Amino acid sequence: MSDDNRALLAANEAFYRAFSGRDAEAMAGLWARTVPVACIHPGWDVLTDHETVVASWRRLLANPASPAVRCRDARAFILGTAGFVVCHEVLPEGVLVATNVFVREDGAWKVVHHQAGPVATAAAEPPAGRPRRLH
Amino acid sequence: MSDDNRALLAANEAFYRAFSGRDAEAMAGLWARTVPVACIHPGWDVLTDHETVVASWRRLLANPASPAVRCRDARAFILGTAGFVVCHEVLPEGVLVATNVFVREDGAWKVVHHQAGPVATAAAEPPAGRPRRLH
Repeated sequence: MSDDNRALLAANEAFYRAFSGRDAEAMAGLWARTVPVACIHPGWDVLTDHETVVASWRRLLANPASPAVRCRDARAFILGTAGFVVCHEVLPEGVLVATNVFVREDGAWKVVHHQAGPVATAAAEPPAGRPRRLH
Repeated sequence: MSDDNRALLAANEAFYRAFSGRDAEAMAGLWARTVPVACIHPGWDVLTDHETVVASWRRLLANPASPAVRCRDARAFILGTAGFVVCHEVLPEGVLVATNVFVREDGAWKVVHHQAGPVATAAAEPPAGRPRRLH
């Protein structure tokens, strides 16, 4: 594994450490400041701009009912000065699958986009079609 | 809007043209070949590697019951030689929200990652928390 990959996975781990530790300050500091950002919380519509996205995390992490989340199966994909990680988010109520997009800013990987959504935990096979309920 | 943004949105449109037209050859040609790729069909687990991802699209597009999809509200985010688009996928049964990640390959934007998942169509407000059923 390259140093780039390791650094990208470490940035992804920092994201979930802030998330599970309800550390809103750490979370705010992880998001990119030099480029526009976006965020898709599970089931919700797209949020854009730094202030709106960070505010959504502050609200989420301030909620004492916010879940304990654990990141599993993270895989890093480097695209030059950008990259993304796909991983599972393990929650008490089930498993989500997430995409976290990062950009290198002043030598550090910063989050520019997050999308998490439900995944069938028993899904081991590639799809024969998309889920019927939605298609 | 910059030329980069326009080209990225055009690549995203080509993706949905291949999808809605069930054009498996066009879809196969849109995916990056020089870097590893990933794909998260809605409700399914992560697929990786070019062959597996393209095969999943061939199966999906060969299915006569595969949905007519229309892309709406696409927004492009440029990150140097990479970029991503967030958009809505409008289907007969509902609306999905998608992230499509692209990388520049031989001067053209190629898909390296796709994630689509459900969105509450009435969601106009930022979340106060993540959905209860999953958190």
